Amino acid sequence: MPDSPPATAIDGADAEGAIAAAAKRCSNWGRWGADDVLGTLNFLDDAKRREGAGLVRRGASFSLAQSFDADGPQKGWRRRTNPVHTMLDTGLDAERGTQGFPHGIGGADDVVFMPLQASTQWDGLGHIFDHGLAYNGRRAGDVVTSQGDRVTGIETAAAHIAGRGVLLDVGRVLGTDGELPDGFAVTTEHLEATIAAHGASARVGPGDLVLVRTGRLARARREGWGDYAGGPAPGLSFTTADWLHGTEIAGIATDTWGFEVRPNEFDDAFQPLHQVVIPHIGLYVGEMWDLDALATDCAADGVHEFLLVAAPLPVTGAVGAPVNPIAVK
Amino acid sequence: MPDSPPATAIDGADAEGAIAAAAKRCSNWGRWGADDVLGTLNFLDDAKRREGAGLVRRGASFSLAQSFDADGPQKGWRRRTNPVHTMLDTGLDAERGTQGFPHGIGGADDVVFMPLQASTQWDGLGHIFDHGLAYNGRRAGDVVTSQGDRVTGIETAAAHIAGRGVLLDVGRVLGTDGELPDGFAVTTEHLEATIAAHGASARVGPGDLVLVRTGRLARARREGWGDYAGGPAPGLSFTTADWLHGTEIAGIATDTWGFEVRPNEFDDAFQPLHQVVIPHIGLYVGEMWDLDALATDCAADGVHEFLLVAAPLPVTGAVGAPVNPIAVK
Amino acid sequence: MPDSPPATAIDGADAEGAIAAAAKRCSNWGRWGADDVLGTLNFLDDAKRREGAGLVRRGASFSLAQSFDADGPQKGWRRRTNPVHTMLDTGLDAERGTQGFPHGIGGADDVVFMPLQASTQWDGLGHIFDHGLAYNGRRAGDVVTSQGDRVTGIETAAAHIAGRGVLLDVGRVLGTDGELPDGFAVTTEHLEATIAAHGASARVGPGDLVLVRTGRLARARREGWGDYAGGPAPGLSFTTADWLHGTEIAGIATDTWGFEVRPNEFDDAFQPLHQVVIPHIGLYVGEMWDLDALATDCAADGVHEFLLVAAPLPVTGAVGAPVNPIAVK
Amino acid sequence: MPDSPPATAIDGADAEGAIAAAAKRCSNWGRWGADDVLGTLNFLDDAKRREGAGLVRRGASFSLAQSFDADGPQKGWRRRTNPVHTMLDTGLDAERGTQGFPHGIGGADDVVFMPLQASTQWDGLGHIFDHGLAYNGRRAGDVVTSQGDRVTGIETAAAHIAGRGVLLDVGRVLGTDGELPDGFAVTTEHLEATIAAHGASARVGPGDLVLVRTGRLARARREGWGDYAGGPAPGLSFTTADWLHGTEIAGIATDTWGFEVRPNEFDDAFQPLHQVVIPHIGLYVGEMWDLDALATDCAADGVHEFLLVAAPLPVTGAVGAPVNPIAVK
Repeated sequence: MPDSPPATAIDGADAEGAIAAAAKRCSNWGRWGADDVLGTLNFLDDAKRREGAGLVRRGASFSLAQSFDADGPQKGWRRRTNPVHTMLDTGLDAERGTQGFPHGIGGADDVVFMPLQASTQWDGLGHIFDHGLAYNGRRAGDVVTSQGDRVTGIETAAAHIAGRGVLLDVGRVLGTDGELPDGFAVTTEHLEATIAAHGASARVGPGDLVLVRTGRLARARREGWGDYAGGPAPGLSFTTADWLHGTEIAGIATDTWGFEVRPNEFDDAFQPLHQVVIPHIGLYVGEMWDLDALATDCAADGVHEFLLVAAPLPVTGAVGAPVNPIAVK
Repeated sequence: MPDSPPATAIDGADAEGAIAAAAKRCSNWGRWGADDVLGTLNFLDDAKRREGAGLVRRGASFSLAQSFDADGPQKGWRRRTNPVHTMLDTGLDAERGTQGFPHGIGGADDVVFMPLQASTQWDGLGHIFDHGLAYNGRRAGDVVTSQGDRVTGIETAAAHIAGRGVLLDVGRVLGTDGELPDGFAVTTEHLEATIAAHGASARVGPGDLVLVRTGRLARARREGWGDYAGGPAPGLSFTTADWLHGTEIAGIATDTWGFEVRPNEFDDAFQPLHQVVIPHIGLYVGEMWDLDALATDCAADGVHEFLLVAAPLPVTGAVGAPVNPIAVK
Repeated sequence: MPDSPPATAIDGADAEGAIAAAAKRCSNWGRWGADDVLGTLNFLDDAKRREGAGLVRRGASFSLAQSFDADGPQKGWRRRTNPVHTMLDTGLDAERGTQGFPHGIGGADDVVFMPLQASTQWDGLGHIFDHGLAYNGRRAGDVVTSQGDRVTGIETAAAHIAGRGVLLDVGRVLGTDGELPDGFAVTTEHLEATIAAHGASARVGPGDLVLVRTGRLARARREGWGDYAGGPAPGLSFTTADWLHGTEIAGIATDTWGFEVRPNEFDDAFQPLHQVVIPHIGLYVGEMWDLDALATDCAADGVHEFLLVAAPLPVTGAVGAPVNPIAVK
Repeated sequence: MPDSPPATAIDGADAEGAIAAAAKRCSNWGRWGADDVLGTLNFLDDAKRREGAGLVRRGASFSLAQSFDADGPQKGWRRRTNPVHTMLDTGLDAERGTQGFPHGIGGADDVVFMPLQASTQWDGLGHIFDHGLAYNGRRAGDVVTSQGDRVTGIETAAAHIAGRGVLLDVGRVLGTDGELPDGFAVTTEHLEATIAAHGASARVGPGDLVLVRTGRLARARREGWGDYAGGPAPGLSFTTADWLHGTEIAGIATDTWGFEVRPNEFDDAFQPLHQVVIPHIGLYVGEMWDLDALATDCAADGVHEFLLVAAPLPVTGAVGAPVNPIAVK
């Protein structure tokens, strides 16, 4: 297995400087005009959707969503609980005949309370700020108030995220038994090596939706959630910011809680790669996706590209949103 | 405009008898085995997904979801409120610098409380019962308890609903200014006339996902919600049960609150067509979809078929689920 | 019935000036030190609690809470819905024997989602600001962030609100059939006239908890909620600010949605009296209390004072809180 | 320290038999008529409230509520999460001037999602069933459906729970440093010994509200929540059922999660004492109360009786309810 980047590649003491430098190199502010709300989704055009549809050969479909229920990994960090699903009416009530409906009809109905990032989700562009600034240079407080994200709310992305998906199974290519260890920082070299190992179907370019599998979820499935939410994990190295920017991908998602490697690669840091890619690149980032079944299929047939439709639930003003991503091969 | 079915077609006084007869004629119980949980989604196979993908010509995509927010149509019927979306952190907090994060990163986060049928949704097979029995003849209380639907929960459909979509714009073909009036019962003849008017691309067969536009949402958009949720509306006639069964479609969705015509066609009735199609046919029914932009596009290019990916949010055990359906032409 | 104050008493065009002047006259900023979080609850001391307890003669108790359920008056204004109470387990589940417990024990459990001001409640001191300033001159954003009220959260009042309650039944004394009409502004003169009519037991002084009954809830009970939440209503006149300040009462509550008269007494205004009494006086204001049964009892025995224990549910950081106030006579 | 009851006192293998026998000895079914919904609250009459009020000597008040927030002990057992409190508007929004209100007024507002037994609470009479039967012999499913408790909902107790409180500080009398160890079963002898140690003010009789302090919460405060919710704890022995019945107390509350000792005293058991006291005795049981400050005061002045007002939040149909109990000495 290739090593994570040497400690010398990153000055652990200077998160702030490294973030500022990367942000400057990778900024997309103004690229699509001052009013842009889509960020890298601008790369995902009709041609890309045609290309995605053209990848459907067998018609096999895969849901890349984890479960949405009370048995999830959340432990309450910053009030993020697991979804709580409760019933307004049940089959037991219907059987008892007390629902008040005519001619023998009975019904069940339900509600859910959930943090929008409790399970499989897209981060919206209003999810992360850099020194009080949001995507495209807007003031954070002009974008996201208690009313929600009034500019780049997730509803702006409702119709867009359908196109060509590419699975980079870094866990399978570089890990042990398909899994990378916690703290493993996936570098650009790792990503390129994975693409090379997968072959032509795994090429990555403008408008693609890239899925990076680390194997972290597979381990959680085997061992229990433990610290899946917020704890140590493999993930993207801070040093991939330029690759994420340069490839002009439309979005990226992983099978981990937080997309980037944890612990983070600076001495005192919290999700520094987020601070570059969301407000500066305007990149759509997905987290907590379940890539395992799809990965098994890709390993079997050697094809790592597919149609991917991953339309977020358009909760108005949301800074993140649950999604049931569908891959069709 | 053709009339709704004559009063003589239905014996308004005998909802119970009519439902029992239709249920007997249309039952799919046991058709896919005693353990089946998919109902009509069994008709939606890989070949159908290939066919759907093959319909993508331009790559134009459409979200068929209404908004998910507090400005929706719900008025609290049976505790169904509109979604309430609140923030756990905002850009204002980030600007103020009190979030406790290092190196200038700031974040916004959010939660939602919502009935699962508050906005655009699929009814799950555990949503409706007939005399205490659920799909495939199971006891309602063996299926849906306070723990949710433990047999046919919406998560069972998570990976399936991607295929060929067909729009039947009954409102445009038979209505005035594209809209049918409240109480207009869409019959099999109306459906067939609409297919004929649309031409070959609107043919309906096994495994298709059929979208029926009445124009009711367009009116709500123009006039305000009023009684959109639960009030009078155009919709499918009870008499379409045989067509819904015989065509072997995989699912059907409308732009109305309740799929079937309201007031219902019996003297004392509540959603009698539901009572046949969900527990007996095992049909997936979608409600509160926004078909207007797609319909305008179909009217313009004359093509009424498309790739449709409408994957419900897989809340474990849900008897219905929000969805952001994506059509790609 | 005495009239509402003459139009000449208030310059309807100058809400801002009137508020500023009243705020200056009535300010309690600094009165109890720069760190004070209790406001007028400082007037409610141990002696007052002894006095309250001493008023219990018969031992008759009254709950002054309205219901907390989906049938309440809320219509979604600023995302305030009615409480939604759902079950996690029911007696039907217990009867069915599927709960997984030993030796025949069964259980029911439940959850609630509710705006904290959905029904009978106390406004906390962080509920209202004047030009960005909260009680005691603090910056609003230093007090109430997305984390809640970190200074004057309702938990600071958890142990305090027990003392002498006084009912001023203005509706019964000055209204028709016990009810004041919408838009009736209750002035200081009206309050004094009511006290005079009730006699010595209705005297008001430092540390008292004053309950003002307008009859508005009685009407809602008879006619339906209508616009009870946010619509026209009788209530305190803006001109009572000085009385509310000068009497040194600890708190005041009414049977209306919004405490003060609606429409408000200025041309373009929203709850101007709130803007004076909460941030400047530091007054605890209760709304949507049910005073009718207590009022009937007071009218019968002529005693308008009682022990009142109205301890808010101490949701940490809440800017308002539900309460089940108990009066004991 | 006296020992817990000898193993011989309870046949650990026969929970079902022991429960049935105790239920038979202690049943109050029919005692107050077939329609009774109050259970032991019938013992709490006006005379008792007068007696309670008469105990107020100094006017010192104590809130016996724990916090209601995300930092609570709940870990998601049976979907019981900690309360999630979120803001609809904040001081930051008000300062920013974007709330849309006139004349400089600003506001903050909030909502809460919480299991009704997340923190300090009363169990309602519909909370626990014995072999499918609820209090007074009603079928569990006739009482608590998905609509909530339609018979003995907590709102039936809204006005009642004010009276004489008695603190039995078993932890201080029998424990080490004021705390009993986990698994310590508090027997009738322990209760009697504690009463004797406290003296006359701790006598217990009909209509009293008895508070039993074990010290478990004090330990959680010192060591962290750990398994406070559902784990091992000191608590009432199953053998106290007869004392709880015979004393004719109106209610009892403890500083633990589950009132009775855990692990329970039978080999395979879950809360067997609940199964006797709630459905058969009709006893109001409080859990997760914070008795520490009150206990310190009682230890200091030697007076263990006081006015107690503990009015549950009257969520319609609730089978349990949060409460902010107020003791006044």
